Amino acid sequence: MTPAENAQLALLLEVAGTPKPGNVDRERDFPDLRFEHFLAGAVGSGSGLRAAEDGAPVGEAFERAVAGMSRQRGGNTQFGALLLLVPLVRAAASGGESGSGDLSPEDATRVVEATTTEDAANFYRAFDHADVFVDDPPEDAQTLDVRRGSDAIPAVEERDATLSDVLALGDDDDDVAAEWTGGFERTFRAADRLADLPDSVPASAKAAQVYLELLAREPDTLVAKQHGTKTAESVRVRAQEALEGGPEVVAAFAESLVADGVNPGTTADLTAAGLFVALERGEVTV
Amino acid sequence: MTPAENAQLALLLEVAGTPKPGNVDRERDFPDLRFEHFLAGAVGSGSGLRAAEDGAPVGEAFERAVAGMSRQRGGNTQFGALLLLVPLVRAAASGGESGSGDLSPEDATRVVEATTTEDAANFYRAFDHADVFVDDPPEDAQTLDVRRGSDAIPAVEERDATLSDVLALGDDDDDVAAEWTGGFERTFRAADRLADLPDSVPASAKAAQVYLELLAREPDTLVAKQHGTKTAESVRVRAQEALEGGPEVVAAFAESLVADGVNPGTTADLTAAGLFVALERGEVTV
Repeated sequence: MTPAENAQLALLLEVAGTPKPGNVDRERDFPDLRFEHFLAGAVGSGSGLRAAEDGAPVGEAFERAVAGMSRQRGGNTQFGALLLLVPLVRAAASGGESGSGDLSPEDATRVVEATTTEDAANFYRAFDHADVFVDDPPEDAQTLDVRRGSDAIPAVEERDATLSDVLALGDDDDDVAAEWTGGFERTFRAADRLADLPDSVPASAKAAQVYLELLAREPDTLVAKQHGTKTAESVRVRAQEALEGGPEVVAAFAESLVADGVNPGTTADLTAAGLFVALERGEVTV
Repeated sequence: MTPAENAQLALLLEVAGTPKPGNVDRERDFPDLRFEHFLAGAVGSGSGLRAAEDGAPVGEAFERAVAGMSRQRGGNTQFGALLLLVPLVRAAASGGESGSGDLSPEDATRVVEATTTEDAANFYRAFDHADVFVDDPPEDAQTLDVRRGSDAIPAVEERDATLSDVLALGDDDDDVAAEWTGGFERTFRAADRLADLPDSVPASAKAAQVYLELLAREPDTLVAKQHGTKTAESVRVRAQEALEGGPEVVAAFAESLVADGVNPGTTADLTAAGLFVALERGEVTV
């Protein structure tokens, strides 16, 4: 598989993993956001992922992936996952043959550090395609509010902000942005955990397990933005209990998150990114 | 979505539709053939489907799609579906813009009739990539046995057999071949049925419903080859009863097919092809 194919497969395996408490999965639809929207999102992302593989600038490839992802009626299915996958695909494609085992945090960071103001502009354009839940920007960066979409581009250009700079504005409150500025630490840790699980476990079951481990380790930043940091910490603690309590506790935890409308989407994004790295390194196979 | 994207989405929606008695689906894995193998098969097929869209000859695009599909450990996941989808993608891409509602049986037949001996040779090469269950060839066509894979190519070339000719040898016993020689009649009928179902029904649920209708209408030819025509007819009758009996009868029917190792794979292939036509015509949306 090429890096772009592994990224598409990572998106599909992530959503197929079940149970993934609080998120759509193989056995869970929400009324307006269903499994099939994620399937269509993964298909539509392909063109942008291939652009990244073929050497397109990260921002351009990301905008294209998000535009493709958005051609379904479920809304934002994989924006955060693509924001992680596009630089990782770029890094994997630059670093040599797929499956060579070479992909490293350093490769990913090199891609991040090479981003430009043009990448940042295309990142803002991507927000025109999808309705992404984001928090208020820092006080000194109101003009760079991503919710302004392409309207913010003049301000981005005036500040000479690269895409890496823009994401650094949000890395305290958004764990996808924190991956960009922190060497994709949790992504690679997730990949290592996926690699540790026995070969006999199906890839999508590995994904569900590592999702729960990630959720138990750090509060989900989407949950924090939508429901506050206390709720996010409580979800983290309950994920830890579910991890220790086994399938029935996990199922009850999943039901309660759905009942409360709590969706740990950032943790799902990190899971997809970890799957990509593990597939790319040949540590997870299907 | 482009034709190649719609074909990839059709493969995914087909396998996501549940319950699809006797086949892997969103809620059913077999021990060695799992849902995730179909996800990987759909991802891997992408390159061949895009080749068909871009104007590659049907045989070449099909071989490439099958080679890509086969890069997973579940074995043959979507060979028959791809044999239907590749000419349909080619027809859709030749016929104008996606979503124009133009794709017709005549377009598909034009693609079939234009196939060459080179397409036939690549069709045989495709059998080198996947372990496909097929029956004995007609007595006068032993040298064209597809199980010989690329070893049969000299005989194909000696006879000047086109891919359409080769499939005509099997159209009595194989309903994928029969689509090629019969104007994709069941494919387009399936698309019409998919279009008839209410908008409120998710696309994958439409797929499951139409799968059962197809299975109730004609005996599945893969079941006939593997278990005999009596079993195939009995499965057809029971599919009809399940259709009339509602969810519990469908579930019991599904359990009994799994227990007996009966896999109506041709009907699943036709469902995927019908989904493609309906997506392409904008009659099914996600």
